[in-house]
Amino acid sequence: MKLSQIGEETLLESIRKTFSHCSRNIVHGIGDDAAVLRQSSKYLFVSTDMMVEGIHFNLRFITPYQLGFKLVTVTVSDMYAMGCTPQYLLLNIGLHKDTTKYFINTFFAGIQAALLKYNCDLIGGDLSSVRRDISLSAVSIGGGKKILSRKGAQPGEKIYVTGFLGDAACGLELLKRMNKPVPITCSNTSRIQSFKGLSRKILQPLLKRHLLPDLKKPAPFVKHASSMMDISDGLLIDLSRLCKESQVGAKIYSDKIPVSSELRIASIKLGLSCQKLALTGGEDYELLFTSPRELKRGAYHIGDIVESGTVLIGKNGQETPFSPEGYQHFL
Amino acid sequence: MKLSQIGEETLLESIRKTFSHCSRNIVHGIGDDAAVLRQSSKYLFVSTDMMVEGIHFNLRFITPYQLGFKLVTVTVSDMYAMGCTPQYLLLNIGLHKDTTKYFINTFFAGIQAALLKYNCDLIGGDLSSVRRDISLSAVSIGGGKKILSRKGAQPGEKIYVTGFLGDAACGLELLKRMNKPVPITCSNTSRIQSFKGLSRKILQPLLKRHLLPDLKKPAPFVKHASSMMDISDGLLIDLSRLCKESQVGAKIYSDKIPVSSELRIASIKLGLSCQKLALTGGEDYELLFTSPRELKRGAYHIGDIVESGTVLIGKNGQETPFSPEGYQHFL
Repeated sequence: MKLSQIGEETLLESIRKTFSHCSRNIVHGIGDDAAVLRQSSKYLFVSTDMMVEGIHFNLRFITPYQLGFKLVTVTVSDMYAMGCTPQYLLLNIGLHKDTTKYFINTFFAGIQAALLKYNCDLIGGDLSSVRRDISLSAVSIGGGKKILSRKGAQPGEKIYVTGFLGDAACGLELLKRMNKPVPITCSNTSRIQSFKGLSRKILQPLLKRHLLPDLKKPAPFVKHASSMMDISDGLLIDLSRLCKESQVGAKIYSDKIPVSSELRIASIKLGLSCQKLALTGGEDYELLFTSPRELKRGAYHIGDIVESGTVLIGKNGQETPFSPEGYQHFL
Repeated sequence: MKLSQIGEETLLESIRKTFSHCSRNIVHGIGDDAAVLRQSSKYLFVSTDMMVEGIHFNLRFITPYQLGFKLVTVTVSDMYAMGCTPQYLLLNIGLHKDTTKYFINTFFAGIQAALLKYNCDLIGGDLSSVRRDISLSAVSIGGGKKILSRKGAQPGEKIYVTGFLGDAACGLELLKRMNKPVPITCSNTSRIQSFKGLSRKILQPLLKRHLLPDLKKPAPFVKHASSMMDISDGLLIDLSRLCKESQVGAKIYSDKIPVSSELRIASIKLGLSCQKLALTGGEDYELLFTSPRELKRGAYHIGDIVESGTVLIGKNGQETPFSPEGYQHFL
């Protein structure tokens, strides 16, 4: 069955049933002109993120489940990046009228899995047909007491990231070469086959990072951090943005950038530069933050904030200025 | 100059400059991962709406200014429909990389005009490239004390609309036949030429209603109303939705539906049914509400809430059941 036989009203009805919730702060949920919340936190955080077919994803190598999961995850990541834990989501969903019921069901299963994982309620959104490319966006809302923006880094502070970099970019490169979807879900990652001599064990964390990213909660770092953001477009461009907003510079050490052993092995097999993937690859969704304190757990110290300039220091101490290299739309 | 030469970062920078604001409740605005607000109202209202090229608009007969204006207006209308006056907006903007600087500037001028008109601040959003069709969405946020949803209508209450119906649908039909943009703006509506024997004076309110809709504020009706929504997809489908949510029926009187003299004249010339446009035409963005009270000003009494069934009563008293006819995506 196709969306053209189901129609907007029936789809909306099924969404309301699937995503019914009982949080007492949701005064009015899905299905009206606006959602209404009871809100008592000091600050209200709001973020929105788009995902457009052919730009952010390619249906040749992402499943509808993974697409739904990622749609929720990217906007949750934006909220984590400000030190906030989101509670509510709205989704704008633009699908082709030929979309199958199977696609819709698995897409919503992915959304549901991410909502459960990140403990968020879907409270509204909008449905539309599209002529060609699928167009999605997610809005997240949450309350909080402390704001961690890109502004606030001070010279002398340390720069941290919360996990391995480059895995997601390598995962995307693998998918492009495989040129078919890898139908893993949150509860089942067994359906990965070895590829170009790379075993399942090597492939799994790289593919999973791209398809079903697993966000680190900001809570353990919020009280120590002076500025924070998520790495969505690549370390160099995102760190450059943080430096620009904070009006500071940064030195990072190439041998301190955390790189997984899987990335090292896969990048050699694929003929890619491991360092380039880690420095400029997007979509790792790790947190990047600065702190005056020395942190022992949960984050890697990759460099230091300085007065000005952005410099990468190599293994032998050679300094290479870096520019904000990474993904930029339109260019 | 094209977006491919400007790039995301420069565009974002210019948006930040254009839409800088100084509301003291905006703690953190455009340019970070999330926006942060100080919020003290009892209830928080949130709404989001999509506008997709080829579905919601056609660049053959809408100018970029009008597109920007309408993007803001449709989401403000959703908030008005709940009895809330929105204060903040976020925009998701997906444009082709070949988009010209002229397009961008006039598109943002339209957004700015609507933000000023509806007294809203732009606080964030997302930018993306698209391969083909432009994809836009708007998120609006506001505080309020009373919620007017689609639920709440009671048998015996009166049904009201706040203005003429069918004008926007007739305006769209005119534009399709003219097959070119009519470059009117909020401050200049002089650039309309007569068409098919219809004078500027007849054309102006019809075209303006479609291109630059002028929303009625809900404030005068909020205290009297028991349920409310906006007419975006057509009176019959939208009233059916209100009845479904309120678990009631409705009788409406065909001779009480407010229709402009311009619509009467134009529909004859165009060979269209004036009544059909008024009953099923979308995008008028008038408020539809129910109230136990008899209201003297600002709204037209078009019918009454009954226990069940949805019926249109003709001039001679004949009753015709109506189904939720109007625009529905995907079908």
